[in-house]
Amino acid sequence: MTIFGAYTNSEILNYLKEQTPHAEIHIDDKEALDHSANGKAENSIQGKILAYVEVGDVEDIRGVLKTARKFHVPVVPQTADTSTVIGADGINGSIILSVKKLNHIKELNVDDSLAVVEPGVINQELDNAAREKGLFYAPDPASKPISSIGGNVSTNAGGMSCLKYGATKDNILGLKVMLADGREIKLGGRTLKQAFGYDLTQLFIGSEGTLGIVTEITVRLRPLPLGKSVTGMAFFNDMTALAKCVNKLRLSGLNFSMLEALDGKTVVALDEYEKTNYAKSDSSSMLIFGFDDASEQEPKVSEKILKENGAWGIEITTDPEKAKKLIKLRQDMLLAVFAQSDYYIMEDMAVPLSKLAEMVDYIAKVTKDQNVMIYTAGHAGDGNLHPTFLWNGQSEAPDNVIEGIRLLFRKTLSLGGTISGEHAVGMSKNQWTVEELGSNVDQIQHEIKNLFDPLGILNPKRKIN
Amino acid sequence: MTIFGAYTNSEILNYLKEQTPHAEIHIDDKEALDHSANGKAENSIQGKILAYVEVGDVEDIRGVLKTARKFHVPVVPQTADTSTVIGADGINGSIILSVKKLNHIKELNVDDSLAVVEPGVINQELDNAAREKGLFYAPDPASKPISSIGGNVSTNAGGMSCLKYGATKDNILGLKVMLADGREIKLGGRTLKQAFGYDLTQLFIGSEGTLGIVTEITVRLRPLPLGKSVTGMAFFNDMTALAKCVNKLRLSGLNFSMLEALDGKTVVALDEYEKTNYAKSDSSSMLIFGFDDASEQEPKVSEKILKENGAWGIEITTDPEKAKKLIKLRQDMLLAVFAQSDYYIMEDMAVPLSKLAEMVDYIAKVTKDQNVMIYTAGHAGDGNLHPTFLWNGQSEAPDNVIEGIRLLFRKTLSLGGTISGEHAVGMSKNQWTVEELGSNVDQIQHEIKNLFDPLGILNPKRKIN
Repeated sequence: MTIFGAYTNSEILNYLKEQTPHAEIHIDDKEALDHSANGKAENSIQGKILAYVEVGDVEDIRGVLKTARKFHVPVVPQTADTSTVIGADGINGSIILSVKKLNHIKELNVDDSLAVVEPGVINQELDNAAREKGLFYAPDPASKPISSIGGNVSTNAGGMSCLKYGATKDNILGLKVMLADGREIKLGGRTLKQAFGYDLTQLFIGSEGTLGIVTEITVRLRPLPLGKSVTGMAFFNDMTALAKCVNKLRLSGLNFSMLEALDGKTVVALDEYEKTNYAKSDSSSMLIFGFDDASEQEPKVSEKILKENGAWGIEITTDPEKAKKLIKLRQDMLLAVFAQSDYYIMEDMAVPLSKLAEMVDYIAKVTKDQNVMIYTAGHAGDGNLHPTFLWNGQSEAPDNVIEGIRLLFRKTLSLGGTISGEHAVGMSKNQWTVEELGSNVDQIQHEIKNLFDPLGILNPKRKIN
Repeated sequence: MTIFGAYTNSEILNYLKEQTPHAEIHIDDKEALDHSANGKAENSIQGKILAYVEVGDVEDIRGVLKTARKFHVPVVPQTADTSTVIGADGINGSIILSVKKLNHIKELNVDDSLAVVEPGVINQELDNAAREKGLFYAPDPASKPISSIGGNVSTNAGGMSCLKYGATKDNILGLKVMLADGREIKLGGRTLKQAFGYDLTQLFIGSEGTLGIVTEITVRLRPLPLGKSVTGMAFFNDMTALAKCVNKLRLSGLNFSMLEALDGKTVVALDEYEKTNYAKSDSSSMLIFGFDDASEQEPKVSEKILKENGAWGIEITTDPEKAKKLIKLRQDMLLAVFAQSDYYIMEDMAVPLSKLAEMVDYIAKVTKDQNVMIYTAGHAGDGNLHPTFLWNGQSEAPDNVIEGIRLLFRKTLSLGGTISGEHAVGMSKNQWTVEELGSNVDQIQHEIKNLFDPLGILNPKRKIN
């Protein structure tokens, strides 16, 4: 039996149970293991957790924190457990604090154009509820059907519509947060404009559970646009040509709500997966684009620019069924790519808009030099790329994959980009902090962390080092 | 001669001069007095400053801070000196650190759709430079022709286009900041998406010079929209009817870039000022609205909604000259109102969108109950109101004005609003911190302030108490 100071595990667990009367607590069972290791018990690499706790209310959260403070136990906040950066997996001796049962939409207010939700609400469910009332929730990460608003807030999740509506951070009006010391604070509010306090709402968005536990979120909802929905696709000889054309499209002044790139290999994989026949060749890449508020000019002007910039196979539609098929293609991209091999690492970086073509060229070079399999897709309209590295055989990433990722990160930084565009940092990238942010900012981050969490109990070793 | 500890003023000033070789230093002259008191020496209420320093470069900023640390002298950062909340006036014994000469656009990059500017660049000048290249800078505070990007960042300035493009905070990609200890840090970057560090960029935006001195700003520029510009006006029997119609317009799904309200008295004042003839009666209010990216449907649908909701005198135009006149009306609003009396206080609050009509009703009630003159205009589309209190005779605000403002603040908070929508806090409102934010958040704000500025030298007593 593990000993923490003078206490045994069972003493800690007894105290935990007393403090969390409405929680469901799992110890040593499959559910605990699964949630400890990104949905797969066999993935477990972070050691053995103390308990997996699904809280029933905010008081249970306070109880978990009280237990953690008393026994100096790490707390890993978790909701839908969809992190792509080892941000919510168990840590040796930790309590996983799951808020997945706090999944109620407490208010959906049309006239104020906002909703107040618990952190466990699934993004898609919030959006569906809003659409029933003529509004929508803009942020649409690829994980939309399965990821939670709480997780989206903690990672500042992005998606396809960031281009027009920004990331999660641009769609949150207020938060309630429980601090490590058990105080619940209210940040932001219900107004579109706010210039009163320091912007602590934004400090908590994207802080990956390292500064406090988000207990309530006030999201901005927008009225559904009155214009037409237009969706299109186009092909290019390679990703570089696509990237160059995307900048032309963007600079035209057309207000795209979607500008998505898929490289040739990804389209081939999608054809296999979807039983479709889009791919022309391994190298020819595909652009999926859209407007959610179009008039007559949008399809015309975009077709003209596409043709002038080497695109072919252009199809533009206002038919919802056809549009759905195209968007599904983009949505299924990850599943199709992951089906190509035994193992994968999907990366996420963003570069300044003009550097997209150079970055794409560099990915091709790394593919060749390192002899690695990379399938690249991305939100081309805001310079955000997701190269996915694939390999077979051993589960551990081989050296050329590791080196390939390292090269892409270095290149991204040298182009003035960021090695996390929308997936956050977790434990996958925090060793890059000084390289991306500099040692002064790294130090300030630790000081802020220390201010909110002096005992270091909240998701330790995530986000910052 | 004032003594700071063991030092005389002249000893401090000698040290200051040594540390700021490229600065222009004013002591005791009219320029020093003017910049100490919101552009008017006779306004001075904060005591006597030590010096007004126009720095010539970033090293001078470091020199001012070094002097301030050595002698524990308060530093008041200032740029265009247009604060409406006593945010940049002198404080007894302080050094005013003016960055107005740091006014260069260092880079204007079309392909990256961004500009890198020094804090002294005037908003309008940046926007003009961007428009020459087919881009624009969206934030448009009423002070656009005279206020600086540095000041806009420090107050999170808003404006008419917030409705569509957000406030300053939504249009900044990165900052360089000199900390109180003289370290210059780089926050954010050149990419549209960023999910790596804690969002310190947003922490500094709106922090009113209390956490550090902004030395460089990377702003997002947007391509000029391809659609038509449409501008219109409409009248309502009162502000309440206007406010209700604005919510209908907003919820229609039309993408307005301007939804501005002027009450009857303001329109009368404008007619006097502009020699126009818009006002129908003291009570009938005016809506000025616009689209910067319209097709055929926008004017049609908005006219229909306006008519269905009690509007009359509707005029909608695509003629740039006519549009200019309408927008000038809104822009001259403050000058026209201020010309109505000897003294004024312009207020700034934002309420949840559905509460606009109730707030407007309450302003009418306070006007009557307190027997005060209030002229109200505002950015109706995002619930942001500017009631201006007028009086004659004594320069000090009379009791009924003070009480009127207090009543409006309490009502705003009771409606779930904020008492600062876009003008920040300064010294005008920081006594309301606990009431608006709660004592826990107040405490956290002080802890953050203390983390960045342990000596308390940066704009003390502003923003927070």
